[in-house]
Amino acid sequence: MRILGIDPGLRTTGFGLVDVDGSALTYVASGTISTTQIEKDQLPARLKVLFDGIREVVARYQPDAASVEIVFVNVNPQSTLLLGQARGAAVTALVSCDLPVAEYTALQMKQAVVGYGRADKIQIQEMVKRLLNLPGLPGPDAADALGLAITHAHAAHSMARLAQAKGLGGAQNQTQKAAYKAGRSR
Amino acid sequence: MRILGIDPGLRTTGFGLVDVDGSALTYVASGTISTTQIEKDQLPARLKVLFDGIREVVARYQPDAASVEIVFVNVNPQSTLLLGQARGAAVTALVSCDLPVAEYTALQMKQAVVGYGRADKIQIQEMVKRLLNLPGLPGPDAADALGLAITHAHAAHSMARLAQAKGLGGAQNQTQKAAYKAGRSR
Repeated sequence: MRILGIDPGLRTTGFGLVDVDGSALTYVASGTISTTQIEKDQLPARLKVLFDGIREVVARYQPDAASVEIVFVNVNPQSTLLLGQARGAAVTALVSCDLPVAEYTALQMKQAVVGYGRADKIQIQEMVKRLLNLPGLPGPDAADALGLAITHAHAAHSMARLAQAKGLGGAQNQTQKAAYKAGRSR
Repeated sequence: MRILGIDPGLRTTGFGLVDVDGSALTYVASGTISTTQIEKDQLPARLKVLFDGIREVVARYQPDAASVEIVFVNVNPQSTLLLGQARGAAVTALVSCDLPVAEYTALQMKQAVVGYGRADKIQIQEMVKRLLNLPGLPGPDAADALGLAITHAHAAHSMARLAQAKGLGGAQNQTQKAAYKAGRSR
């Protein structure tokens, strides 16, 4: 199974792809989609860059599932509104490609990747590098996105083992669906 | 020119189409896209219904431009985040169809339609009915959407007249662009 992690943002959206085979993880690709080439007040145009960029990543790497960070309310309500719209465009790009979308909070991601919910940026980058055998540190946005893919991989793996222990194994599709549901916290 | 007005919301998104010929307005269609058939916690699925619904309206009625309400920060920050994501999905649907998207606040719409920025729902419904010669009152969401289309029609008409007065007439495309910019307030 190939998982696409997405760390949504209006200026920069991180993406990261990981192949999962049982508990083995293989790095595929990662990067960022930037909207900074568009004037700040051109919101529809910025959302289009985000939407087109994510669809391009999906078309190129053909993931089987997506894992998107659940964003939080900012101290600045206007920023919350803008971040919400960016996340809306990102999720829409994924569902428009018929990808199942799992959702995790940053806390869940940090716990899954670093084992510590208050891990800082550099700790996430270090652990993602180690878990995926990367030659160098990924950028912070790409690291978060790869972390979200890893989080979903762990959840899917745990659910598959749980299902097997309960004698529900075999129905791979079913366990994937269960893992998908397990990832949602809303 | 055919204008599609959109009043975005996560539960219900209103749409309304108006044909504009100089200062003459003709009603084309209106309605709502509802996501209430989807479970509340399935946000990606709800955004997909919204996205697909708006693209369907665009495919059926082939508008030349869209006019979307600029949403505001809610007292509840979590609602702001959800509304932001719904608006992100709606704007993304429009730009994915290569439609130019103008943006107006509810205040601008009420001033353009009723002539009074604090007009209430029923006043908007009444004026939209009168301006478009409708046989009955449109629903409140559809009325807001039609109001947004009318607002953009007025702005486009004013800008075209202004351009003509300044000797810039003839370049219809240019005046439409100017009107588009005039509508943005962010």
